[in-house]
Amino acid sequence: MPGTMKAAVFARPGRIELREKPVPEVGPLDALLRVTTTTICGTDVHILKGEYPVAEGLTIGHEPVGVIERLGSAVKGYREGQRAIAGAITPSGHSNACLCGFCSQDGAGTAHGWKPSGGWKFGNTIDGCQADYVLVPDAMANLAPVPEGLSDEQVLMCPDIMSTGLVGAESGHVRIGDAVAVFAQGPIGLCATGGAKLMGATTIIAVDRVPERLEMARRLGADHVVDFSRENPVEAIRRLTDGRGVDVAIEALGTQGTFEAALRVLRPGGTLSSLGVYSGDLRIPLDAFAAGLGDHRIITSLCPGGKERMRRLMEVIAGGRLDLKPLVTHRFPLDRIEEAYDLFSHQRDGVLKVAITP
Amino acid sequence: MPGTMKAAVFARPGRIELREKPVPEVGPLDALLRVTTTTICGTDVHILKGEYPVAEGLTIGHEPVGVIERLGSAVKGYREGQRAIAGAITPSGHSNACLCGFCSQDGAGTAHGWKPSGGWKFGNTIDGCQADYVLVPDAMANLAPVPEGLSDEQVLMCPDIMSTGLVGAESGHVRIGDAVAVFAQGPIGLCATGGAKLMGATTIIAVDRVPERLEMARRLGADHVVDFSRENPVEAIRRLTDGRGVDVAIEALGTQGTFEAALRVLRPGGTLSSLGVYSGDLRIPLDAFAAGLGDHRIITSLCPGGKERMRRLMEVIAGGRLDLKPLVTHRFPLDRIEEAYDLFSHQRDGVLKVAITP
Amino acid sequence: MPGTMKAAVFARPGRIELREKPVPEVGPLDALLRVTTTTICGTDVHILKGEYPVAEGLTIGHEPVGVIERLGSAVKGYREGQRAIAGAITPSGHSNACLCGFCSQDGAGTAHGWKPSGGWKFGNTIDGCQADYVLVPDAMANLAPVPEGLSDEQVLMCPDIMSTGLVGAESGHVRIGDAVAVFAQGPIGLCATGGAKLMGATTIIAVDRVPERLEMARRLGADHVVDFSRENPVEAIRRLTDGRGVDVAIEALGTQGTFEAALRVLRPGGTLSSLGVYSGDLRIPLDAFAAGLGDHRIITSLCPGGKERMRRLMEVIAGGRLDLKPLVTHRFPLDRIEEAYDLFSHQRDGVLKVAITP
Amino acid sequence: MPGTMKAAVFARPGRIELREKPVPEVGPLDALLRVTTTTICGTDVHILKGEYPVAEGLTIGHEPVGVIERLGSAVKGYREGQRAIAGAITPSGHSNACLCGFCSQDGAGTAHGWKPSGGWKFGNTIDGCQADYVLVPDAMANLAPVPEGLSDEQVLMCPDIMSTGLVGAESGHVRIGDAVAVFAQGPIGLCATGGAKLMGATTIIAVDRVPERLEMARRLGADHVVDFSRENPVEAIRRLTDGRGVDVAIEALGTQGTFEAALRVLRPGGTLSSLGVYSGDLRIPLDAFAAGLGDHRIITSLCPGGKERMRRLMEVIAGGRLDLKPLVTHRFPLDRIEEAYDLFSHQRDGVLKVAITP
Repeated sequence: MPGTMKAAVFARPGRIELREKPVPEVGPLDALLRVTTTTICGTDVHILKGEYPVAEGLTIGHEPVGVIERLGSAVKGYREGQRAIAGAITPSGHSNACLCGFCSQDGAGTAHGWKPSGGWKFGNTIDGCQADYVLVPDAMANLAPVPEGLSDEQVLMCPDIMSTGLVGAESGHVRIGDAVAVFAQGPIGLCATGGAKLMGATTIIAVDRVPERLEMARRLGADHVVDFSRENPVEAIRRLTDGRGVDVAIEALGTQGTFEAALRVLRPGGTLSSLGVYSGDLRIPLDAFAAGLGDHRIITSLCPGGKERMRRLMEVIAGGRLDLKPLVTHRFPLDRIEEAYDLFSHQRDGVLKVAITP
Repeated sequence: MPGTMKAAVFARPGRIELREKPVPEVGPLDALLRVTTTTICGTDVHILKGEYPVAEGLTIGHEPVGVIERLGSAVKGYREGQRAIAGAITPSGHSNACLCGFCSQDGAGTAHGWKPSGGWKFGNTIDGCQADYVLVPDAMANLAPVPEGLSDEQVLMCPDIMSTGLVGAESGHVRIGDAVAVFAQGPIGLCATGGAKLMGATTIIAVDRVPERLEMARRLGADHVVDFSRENPVEAIRRLTDGRGVDVAIEALGTQGTFEAALRVLRPGGTLSSLGVYSGDLRIPLDAFAAGLGDHRIITSLCPGGKERMRRLMEVIAGGRLDLKPLVTHRFPLDRIEEAYDLFSHQRDGVLKVAITP
Repeated sequence: MPGTMKAAVFARPGRIELREKPVPEVGPLDALLRVTTTTICGTDVHILKGEYPVAEGLTIGHEPVGVIERLGSAVKGYREGQRAIAGAITPSGHSNACLCGFCSQDGAGTAHGWKPSGGWKFGNTIDGCQADYVLVPDAMANLAPVPEGLSDEQVLMCPDIMSTGLVGAESGHVRIGDAVAVFAQGPIGLCATGGAKLMGATTIIAVDRVPERLEMARRLGADHVVDFSRENPVEAIRRLTDGRGVDVAIEALGTQGTFEAALRVLRPGGTLSSLGVYSGDLRIPLDAFAAGLGDHRIITSLCPGGKERMRRLMEVIAGGRLDLKPLVTHRFPLDRIEEAYDLFSHQRDGVLKVAITP
Repeated sequence: MPGTMKAAVFARPGRIELREKPVPEVGPLDALLRVTTTTICGTDVHILKGEYPVAEGLTIGHEPVGVIERLGSAVKGYREGQRAIAGAITPSGHSNACLCGFCSQDGAGTAHGWKPSGGWKFGNTIDGCQADYVLVPDAMANLAPVPEGLSDEQVLMCPDIMSTGLVGAESGHVRIGDAVAVFAQGPIGLCATGGAKLMGATTIIAVDRVPERLEMARRLGADHVVDFSRENPVEAIRRLTDGRGVDVAIEALGTQGTFEAALRVLRPGGTLSSLGVYSGDLRIPLDAFAAGLGDHRIITSLCPGGKERMRRLMEVIAGGRLDLKPLVTHRFPLDRIEEAYDLFSHQRDGVLKVAITP
């Protein structure tokens, strides 16, 4: 193992660049993962643009697929050389939040054991995985061996995109026979569409305006697609549900427009499951909210992490239930990651997700 | 039974007046209840002010205690002369919404079986109970006999105030050991405070500014009270929970201020249980919402009705678990109901609830 | 409409026979359905054999597909001539059990509003649907119009087999990524297999010994099939789950053997979802139950009914999520129903379900 | 800190004796707790009698209250000298079971991450706390600081008795207005009675035959007590619930008799919440189980552990919601623990729980 490695770090707003950094030291609870494939997330683009602040010099990236290079002295149950992934969210397992079932709000080490989004560490509060190596904290809670027969690209969506998308359906408590609308068909929205299908929704309506994304939505389970640049999605969804509205609406973009439309298409007693990262205050229109009398639920979910979540998602892939490989539209070596950021942040060339290989 | 009766009807914005009306005809599924005690709700004041539109001439009131005077031809399981109550919300039992567990959104007879707040009929879409007699629709789903030994005033809060207040705690899924904040200690907020206590919350913080209400909150279970005219309630609640925030915040007023404060005091992963009837758009501040990443839940609940709900609430009273008689601060005969509206709508003389006796 | 009709009635143990009966009178809350297709259930065979007692002369059958012939005077929201189904379980909608969400235990008219299996009326406590006409009680809660484009045979499984099978997965709270074992692949077990697939299970193991049934299980979603006449199913399931056990085991037969095996294959914290109708005491082996320390759940479910359930199941069919037509292996006119009973009760000729057409 | 300590160890069936043992070495994730108070559990008596096998020489006991003497090198968030408790169940936090919310079935280090009762380590698979010192594994997940103002005896029930008793009500999903029966009023049954009260049950029926236990049951919340040596408890409970049966029955002993009675008193759709440790096969009578058609649930629960659970239970105590000090009926120094075992195992002198002070 060499002493240094390459890593994509946040230099300043507008600039993520490849640098040489020392390969990290392995603490007793850590594991060092040699990254074999990773990817760029929409959140990374927020970081690039300076919209989400991280420390100068921090390695970016939170979606690692790799091989265990070294295990901490207290880590049991794994062996070096094993292929493994870790979730974008790496809970400690021992905070009050974790022990209460809210692992994404992990506040290990804080006075009260809860910290908003505290489980999101990679590329946020600790070095991430757009690098040759990444240190996985609390390895026993987070390292999930890749089942035989699955390729890197097959499991590349598990750490974040797939986990986040599916939780949109899960938090919405989608039931057999439900009508579900999914607003925005980027990678996360597409996985939410797939999640609604997996949970038994029978009328799935996908909203976007990019034809390729709407086409992909159909492949992943949408029964109807609505191009919001051509028709009012609220009216279209009302029509497609015979005026009834949907049981669950999933918001997968993070804007006032999608949030509000999601609320407006709910039947009384319906659930708005929100996945988007918002960048401003939200407004709840009085009428869409039935003045507070509609038995509505608005539920936000951060990407679930931890090895059991990763194990389950890989089971879904291995069982042939959801094929997310088509989401990988472009491939770059780590050396050319700046080019990948350029493509991805400008959403050029029909890009959905890029695979980065150190 | 006489042919006519007295009833408080909506005349025009600003005017509810007592009129003579015919005693209603009893349809096959109805029951005619001779009202022995009823009360005025904050919602009735919205109607009085013209803020919530109802038809001219409609009898107001949705909280009946009385005696069964006559049963519809198809109604079984009751006998005339029985003391009974009906909830403010009178579900049909046979709409799709009811059969799905959302009885308050009952849309019996509509094309899709769902209607926002459709279960609220008394004094909204059909004649209410501030009258000598009231017709109870779908009587078999709604008539709940009063157990022996309970007085009218003991069960007077069951139809609305108690049902709504408790559902604030229930929809918040209050658990043993929770910290709960309740914003506003009017009759519904007081019942929410009592509900949090009933469900095992161990740190209950009641917010209001009226000393008598804060005192009543303590009697019903609050461990701490916060006078928001003297201190910032968000800061006070943070301090009282050692910086941790509450597991559940219950909004019981219907304003931007209480809604926003309720959101701000939540721990990550906490639940805002909203009971208020809002009169304008709501704003969700970005920071209070953790940009959508806080695993927050916002849940609105309309008063649950139906005879099983009423039965359970009366069990709570009969079991000595919650004593709501002290909420009745004033008493008026039906003849003087206009006077009662005047007192109640201006919140004079420390009024909490008035008992009206035809 | 003629004054008399043909009906298959229970004559005595061992004998169900076709008789002439008067077409029923329609009460205010009823609907008269002209039956166009119905079927025979395993439960009917228990009745035939005298194992489940019903009144002499009662019309058998609880799975009606038909056309509305006449509506009771108080029934709104339907029109005569509409195609409709009703569930095997016909809740009143207004009992305490119904208002509490346990419609199958409907006790309308009883002192306490709960009666074990009280929602099962057709062919049990009132005349059933193996006849030219059937009276649907509480029609507004039970009549579900058939969506355009669905044939009788496509919806024939909705009233009982599909509702019961799916609830096996639903009561088991099957989650995305679960391993699920289903014991016995008769019509209900096959639907439970399909239900596990619909809810996102990723390792579904079907157990039976009839090759055609195992083959059908594969078509409906089983990833693995186990022929219990060739290998020990507990061992096979342990092996197929890498020693881990299943998250949910569904019992779909009603014997000590399947019940016990279902318990033995559970992981700690797993759920046994029981659908079978048992005919003797059950034994819980101490070791399979981890002495009561395994956080196990044993949940029994009776077929959910009511029009909203039927609507949802028909949505599943209409959405192409589950194709149950292949379960209909044989067809008979009502005139030859005795012959159908003979075939079905002896499980001859690979029969799964028979369609009976009056 | 001395090199040796006293510890009560399992010598052979029928014999637990005090021995000198070395004070344990502290590993990186451990904490050494100096025990200030502990107690004897019914489970320890099973161990004493050889009914539950543990290794010869193992230190017994799983209910520690103490002071942090030394922290492992990787343990953060605590300081030496802090008063703390740990639960009887000490989850790792990082097993698949833990990350799935089933901490009591912790299988950290096993191939699949699940092990029946695997979270129970103290006095079962590792040395327990009837000793001067005890090593707490995975300290960050398990050490819960004692709030100021609470005495050792006030929190002594938290690690096991209170956690187990309350989970009986929690797993039963007791709701406001429920009727609940609790079978056996030993320390765990008494806490289950208190738990039912805490969650809002309004008719609580406690069954036992020891007058002092029934009296204590009343103090902790029972509305009715049934002495099963004087009347048939199934009949008595039917009568006390007006023939309706209970919503939840809690079994807190571990015998066929109590299990069966608990099943027989359930209303259709009710839940049997089982806490007992059984010592033989169980029988489910066909009629009590409604042949599998009653929508019954049987749920077993092992004592929940982990520091968040302990924190919550201590909040309940601190909030004055449940006073369990009266359960401590006898006190012994550690030196006389053999005498305490003799008293406790023979249930002499009205003993409920003994406090042992090293």
